[in-house]
Amino acid sequence: MQNIKKYIDQHKDRFLNELIELLKIPSISADSAYKNEVLKTADHIKASLEKAGCENVEICETKGYPIVYGDKIIDKNLPTVLVYGHYDVQPPDPINLWDSPPFEPVIKKTELHPEGAIFARGACDDKGQMYMHVKAMELMTQTNQLPCNVKFMIEGEEEVGSSSLSDFVKENHEKLSNDVILISDTGMIAKDVPSITTGLRGLSYVEVEVTGPNRDLHSGLYGGAVANPINILTKMIASLHDENNHITIPGFYDKVEELSKEERAEMAKAPFSLENYKKALDIDAVYGEAGYSTNERNAIRPTLDVNGIWGGYTGEGAKTVIASQAFAKISMRLVPNQDWKEITELFKKHFESIAPEGVKVKVTPHHGGQGYVTPIDSVGYQAASKAYADTFGKTPIPQRSGGSIPIVSLFEQELKSKTILMGFGLDSDAIHSPNEHFGVWNYFKGIETIPYFYHYFTELNK
Amino acid sequence: MQNIKKYIDQHKDRFLNELIELLKIPSISADSAYKNEVLKTADHIKASLEKAGCENVEICETKGYPIVYGDKIIDKNLPTVLVYGHYDVQPPDPINLWDSPPFEPVIKKTELHPEGAIFARGACDDKGQMYMHVKAMELMTQTNQLPCNVKFMIEGEEEVGSSSLSDFVKENHEKLSNDVILISDTGMIAKDVPSITTGLRGLSYVEVEVTGPNRDLHSGLYGGAVANPINILTKMIASLHDENNHITIPGFYDKVEELSKEERAEMAKAPFSLENYKKALDIDAVYGEAGYSTNERNAIRPTLDVNGIWGGYTGEGAKTVIASQAFAKISMRLVPNQDWKEITELFKKHFESIAPEGVKVKVTPHHGGQGYVTPIDSVGYQAASKAYADTFGKTPIPQRSGGSIPIVSLFEQELKSKTILMGFGLDSDAIHSPNEHFGVWNYFKGIETIPYFYHYFTELNK
Repeated sequence: MQNIKKYIDQHKDRFLNELIELLKIPSISADSAYKNEVLKTADHIKASLEKAGCENVEICETKGYPIVYGDKIIDKNLPTVLVYGHYDVQPPDPINLWDSPPFEPVIKKTELHPEGAIFARGACDDKGQMYMHVKAMELMTQTNQLPCNVKFMIEGEEEVGSSSLSDFVKENHEKLSNDVILISDTGMIAKDVPSITTGLRGLSYVEVEVTGPNRDLHSGLYGGAVANPINILTKMIASLHDENNHITIPGFYDKVEELSKEERAEMAKAPFSLENYKKALDIDAVYGEAGYSTNERNAIRPTLDVNGIWGGYTGEGAKTVIASQAFAKISMRLVPNQDWKEITELFKKHFESIAPEGVKVKVTPHHGGQGYVTPIDSVGYQAASKAYADTFGKTPIPQRSGGSIPIVSLFEQELKSKTILMGFGLDSDAIHSPNEHFGVWNYFKGIETIPYFYHYFTELNK
Repeated sequence: MQNIKKYIDQHKDRFLNELIELLKIPSISADSAYKNEVLKTADHIKASLEKAGCENVEICETKGYPIVYGDKIIDKNLPTVLVYGHYDVQPPDPINLWDSPPFEPVIKKTELHPEGAIFARGACDDKGQMYMHVKAMELMTQTNQLPCNVKFMIEGEEEVGSSSLSDFVKENHEKLSNDVILISDTGMIAKDVPSITTGLRGLSYVEVEVTGPNRDLHSGLYGGAVANPINILTKMIASLHDENNHITIPGFYDKVEELSKEERAEMAKAPFSLENYKKALDIDAVYGEAGYSTNERNAIRPTLDVNGIWGGYTGEGAKTVIASQAFAKISMRLVPNQDWKEITELFKKHFESIAPEGVKVKVTPHHGGQGYVTPIDSVGYQAASKAYADTFGKTPIPQRSGGSIPIVSLFEQELKSKTILMGFGLDSDAIHSPNEHFGVWNYFKGIETIPYFYHYFTELNK
């Protein structure tokens, strides 16, 4: 497979420019103001798949944003790889913290990326990593070395819960039938430490609303005599963790999968520097559940984080007011065996139960998904491992990610196939944050590694 | 003094229209975007004072917004009344909760105000109540019955701490010398229960900032492993009250004036219906410091209220982010003997001390002021009491207000004179809230009552 590097070298600039064009479209699925841009992005993906050699490319309408499908079936007797990715992106705010506009991609050199990195919202999550697969597809078809069947399924609602995708998958078992699902929407430990994500956390995302008096009140005339919804909300949220940072929701830990000493010892082998971690975040100490290491806290343990809070006067200067209402967006990361719908119910029941007299509380579930673990002895994992070994010169390390791709467990349930998470991003890529970027080196390394996966996956299935 | 009612009847419509014109100017001192409007309002006040018969009217420049001064000295041997008021207003947000635009005054009938009420920001606090004094001045000069000397001092920074006014007062003892200070910036118990405010609470207003990681983080990849500034802020704020709703800041209560059984029994005589109070606010229960009644909680006890909180993603939909920073605006209402600067220091010291590892905390004091109590045996109080008795047919009840007019204690300290708080507003006027209004009946009743105060104050000083 010598001509892979050659083909990439010949088309480097075009591969970069095509991704940059894709990144210019602000496909923010969470904000309906960008509806037309999201739809425009779906058309863009359709054209890209056709150009890459896919057949039967179509824009599949849904209740929400469309799913772009395309395939190339070369022989029904050969295995089929289903590639999943998403073309929507997170909102870019806080805008003022970006060094360059989020939808005007620029390539800048950084300490970690002397070859340059593409700065833009979606550069890594997931436009950049998804587009690696489109270009790898082009490479394999143009160089006549596509060894098996391929199906692409690229959605536009991953950042808002993939609700339409789940219906689509349930209704299209035949169309989506495959032998393995391949996703690049995660990261690796370091540029010189390849890793394969073998676990994902589940998610339950809710919004809470605390209502006190029927109108904003003067804090002098009423202060001290009525329940202040903001003070109450802070009390309620604070009570959700105890002094050991355990979550206090009754039943929350009942189904949590506890890892064995051996498994935890295995995890602890992954290279990790607490000093560098703190330095990178400019914090003087880490913080979390008592009895667990940093890597355990954000991989094998569930969490409860406030993602946003607002209420009262937040403008310039001072306003002496008691707000009528206070709000918060709260998400819980779940681990395998915790059921997100059950956890959402437990949260709702508990949160409503701790509301004091004098306020009304409303809990609105947003979305969620189950956690996931994949075995390292599967054909898919072995194929991925060999692919990394060839292109990185090192066997990749299996690792649990703290993130969530809720749809993965649904894939297994509906399509009866395992997912392989081949991520090429880095922790420092700042996904979901200002100045998100993706290393040019990582982008091309991904395009180079993917064909090897197809090769070994086909081989190992013979 | 028969012709008072007559003069008011003759000029009713003009008195209303002039106030409406004044209310149309959005003089929001807290928001620098309205700077020109605030300055325009000062010019408007200057013209009004001249029209009302004041002399030596001038716009006194300050570091901040100007103070409008005017006087009428008829005889150096007669007593002098210094009228204080403010022409700035609170921000109107949340705008969407107003039934009519805050700066497009409309007169609407309500259950409490069958004669109609003027709906606009500042209608009661304090443009409407301040303008009663301007019109009373016009009345007394036009009908040749101004019995003593008058000085007006109308400022534009009351809603943001009156910082320029305090300098102005310190530098102008001679110019502002007086025998009593008269202010209408408070309320009365009910339309048929006149009252005079004999106490005000002090204020300490601060802004807090909690900073965790140096950038917003993905809540999956980092959740559970780093201190979430919003979760931490809620924990810190929640800890500021104990289970009895006592404030936990060390030393906070050290200087709090404790009222005697007798004084509390006297207070308890003021007409008050807890049922109506809860009904008016649509709350199922009141909430506050254990061991005190609702009227005590918002009058003779100090408080700590969050006036605003914000952090993370507050837009539509869901964003799985751990914010780098979280913020809150917090104000404490203080009672006589508590020193606001000392309390601000105690808060700062305590709040910084409870910050856990992993975050940095910043406390920025906004502004503040001392509490105030006035004796009911002073000449000023007696004159006000007789004035109400004449126009309402009832002796007014002395009452403590939970609000703050920080400048009042400074007046006493610098000008060595007592302040009489003749308020004509009602609790239901919704000051600082959407749909602020001021009863037309109250407006004219104020204009009618004020000349009687001048009359009795001059008489009692003979």
